[in-house]
Amino acid sequence: MGREELILEHERLDDLQNGYMLIQNPEQFCFGIDAVLLAWFAKVKPGEKVLDMGTGTGIVPILLKARYPQGRYTGLEIQADSAEMARRSVAYNQLEDDITITTGDIREAASIFGGASFEVVTTNPPYMIGNHGLTGENMAKTIARHETLCSLEDVVQQASRLLNEHGRFYMVHRPFRLAEIFHVMIRHKIEPKRMKLVHPYIDKEPNLVLIEGSKGGKSRITVEKPLIVYEKPGVYTDEILEIYGRER
Amino acid sequence: MGREELILEHERLDDLQNGYMLIQNPEQFCFGIDAVLLAWFAKVKPGEKVLDMGTGTGIVPILLKARYPQGRYTGLEIQADSAEMARRSVAYNQLEDDITITTGDIREAASIFGGASFEVVTTNPPYMIGNHGLTGENMAKTIARHETLCSLEDVVQQASRLLNEHGRFYMVHRPFRLAEIFHVMIRHKIEPKRMKLVHPYIDKEPNLVLIEGSKGGKSRITVEKPLIVYEKPGVYTDEILEIYGRER
Repeated sequence: MGREELILEHERLDDLQNGYMLIQNPEQFCFGIDAVLLAWFAKVKPGEKVLDMGTGTGIVPILLKARYPQGRYTGLEIQADSAEMARRSVAYNQLEDDITITTGDIREAASIFGGASFEVVTTNPPYMIGNHGLTGENMAKTIARHETLCSLEDVVQQASRLLNEHGRFYMVHRPFRLAEIFHVMIRHKIEPKRMKLVHPYIDKEPNLVLIEGSKGGKSRITVEKPLIVYEKPGVYTDEILEIYGRER
Repeated sequence: MGREELILEHERLDDLQNGYMLIQNPEQFCFGIDAVLLAWFAKVKPGEKVLDMGTGTGIVPILLKARYPQGRYTGLEIQADSAEMARRSVAYNQLEDDITITTGDIREAASIFGGASFEVVTTNPPYMIGNHGLTGENMAKTIARHETLCSLEDVVQQASRLLNEHGRFYMVHRPFRLAEIFHVMIRHKIEPKRMKLVHPYIDKEPNLVLIEGSKGGKSRITVEKPLIVYEKPGVYTDEILEIYGRER
């Protein structure tokens, strides 16, 4: 099968600026800056096994593979059509030996993969609390954004089971849930070790938070200097341009 | 007794720039920006009863009284000589009807004052973990800085008992303990509701954090835009000058 045949009707091919391409369906959930920042914030050492929980289009493993070629990546996605699209992106980039996409439920992740089976877990989970009702039309977006199919606690609990001792957990989330996030992490023995707030502008409240935890780690967190996204409307800061691999 | 007789040998009188003066002993623990920012971050409504746990020289109640004249203030301090100096500051400012200084142990605060007896609790507790040994020479400083006589958990547990339902808890602390702070607060039913990081410079990591909690509140925190202390070495930002009540 030719490469172009991997892209279906209504789908588009996006250049990730790192040597890889990503297939997305603009009518469904497309990746945002959250996934890019998560992949930039996370660190992977050679040979480490990395699981991305709720991988969607597979954006996070593909971005991580570009930065850390020697990692071994798995993406877990509950929505069959998203998982299938992610597999086609992996195939398009000829990364089948490096990235595996598994269809399955985050709430069963430790059963699927086995306990203590990863050195790193990454996740860009749904941010919004509660079930706002599944409608056929926007079901894919609803599942990606709302805690319809799994809660913050489900994600952290499974991550804790999946991680080796001193394994690392990387999550992007919304600052309004920060206290709950730390509480749930500590209860599940993933100690928060590093945090970075992301502000749209230097004089505005943060709208994203990047968190690193350590399974069984000691209590002490480094709060890093904040990341600012825009210099002015429509103009990224140098730091963001660098993360996106672009030049001004 | 004349006002000047309230100031003992080795002590000095500092102008708080808000109409009040404070007696301090430069050989012991003197207040810093932490106390000033805590009093600025806290809010007191007319008639509310406010307890400052570990009040030291009484700086926080005196600053709060200047901003919120209709509050009713109590300071609790375990070190008898600090408590006595705080009482002399209260007397110097003729605030005996507004501020009461009680000598006592934070760990017994709920027994001393009774449960659910305050609308607001403020605290600038020791930041450092563990007992680094009490030496006679620096005992006052050691007690003020290290968790020699009470832990973070003691402070939060007592605050929870002392607060009315929906009472407010204000604390200044170090960011490296942020995850533990949130965890302990939630365990003791003081929900973190507002947080502000304080950075020495705009491009440096934060070195203080201001936190507001609500007894029995719902889970949702507002992470405010950060507070920057210095424009350049030795030069405060406009915001800090305003907090100190000074002009450039």
